Amino acid sequence: MQAHELASPYPTVRMDTPAAEAVRVLTEHDRPGLIVVDDNEHPLAVLPASQVLRMLIPRYVQDDPTLARVLDEDFADKMYEALADRSVRDLMPKDKVPLPVVAPDDTVLEIAAIMAADRSPLVAVVEERSRTAPLIGAISASQLLGRVLPEA
Amino acid sequence: MQAHELASPYPTVRMDTPAAEAVRVLTEHDRPGLIVVDDNEHPLAVLPASQVLRMLIPRYVQDDPTLARVLDEDFADKMYEALADRSVRDLMPKDKVPLPVVAPDDTVLEIAAIMAADRSPLVAVVEERSRTAPLIGAISASQLLGRVLPEA
Repeated sequence: MQAHELASPYPTVRMDTPAAEAVRVLTEHDRPGLIVVDDNEHPLAVLPASQVLRMLIPRYVQDDPTLARVLDEDFADKMYEALADRSVRDLMPKDKVPLPVVAPDDTVLEIAAIMAADRSPLVAVVEERSRTAPLIGAISASQLLGRVLPEA
Repeated sequence: MQAHELASPYPTVRMDTPAAEAVRVLTEHDRPGLIVVDDNEHPLAVLPASQVLRMLIPRYVQDDPTLARVLDEDFADKMYEALADRSVRDLMPKDKVPLPVVAPDDTVLEIAAIMAADRSPLVAVVEERSRTAPLIGAISASQLLGRVLPEA
């Protein structure tokens, strides 16, 4: 079995997608993150959901989460307003989260080796072996486990 | 809204759960990992699906994934045999993956602050504010995002 047979649709955004739209996509799909693609639909990076929370929650509250208890509902409104002026580019973590990219004819064991080496829960599958090819879909480590082993 | 209202069931294993059983649970639920609980059902850690792949794929293949292309099907059988003698304890990564634990009455903003600070895609919710309380369920960063913002 090859990568193109295993790939499932995965929610994507672009660097210039409004941050509020990215939040909407995240909450709709309940995935640990979104795949960020370029104008050619080539996968660039992962935007982790926890990273979006980091942008929303001020640093002083992250340092002392008990402070969150005394914040009122206006505070949530203010967070949303702050998001309104931002795009996915502004949300991206400084330490890029690895997103391995595989070719459509890569085998299950090749994909598994790449995910294992990168400690990545996800690989992106692109249309052909090139650095610009569009995304077909993604494969999760859990999905792959079921294919690596003969009778998992 | 509080943690106990947001918690959803999440698949768990114990340290002495056979590795093959952990793989079965992972493939069944398609989650990025499993929550490892102790004998009191208290959450201890996360077992990432990618970590299970690391145990299955020999280091020399991780270092050069193109090698995976020349491995035959017998190889997959051998991987499965190797797994048969192992438990979750043997699969756990040396660098523990953070799993923040929250109390049932923690608020959405408190949970968000904790997830943001720990860069965690998941928090475990336990029955009461104690270091031994059993797991009620888990909350993902994506689920939480929908609650943090007034109209995401």
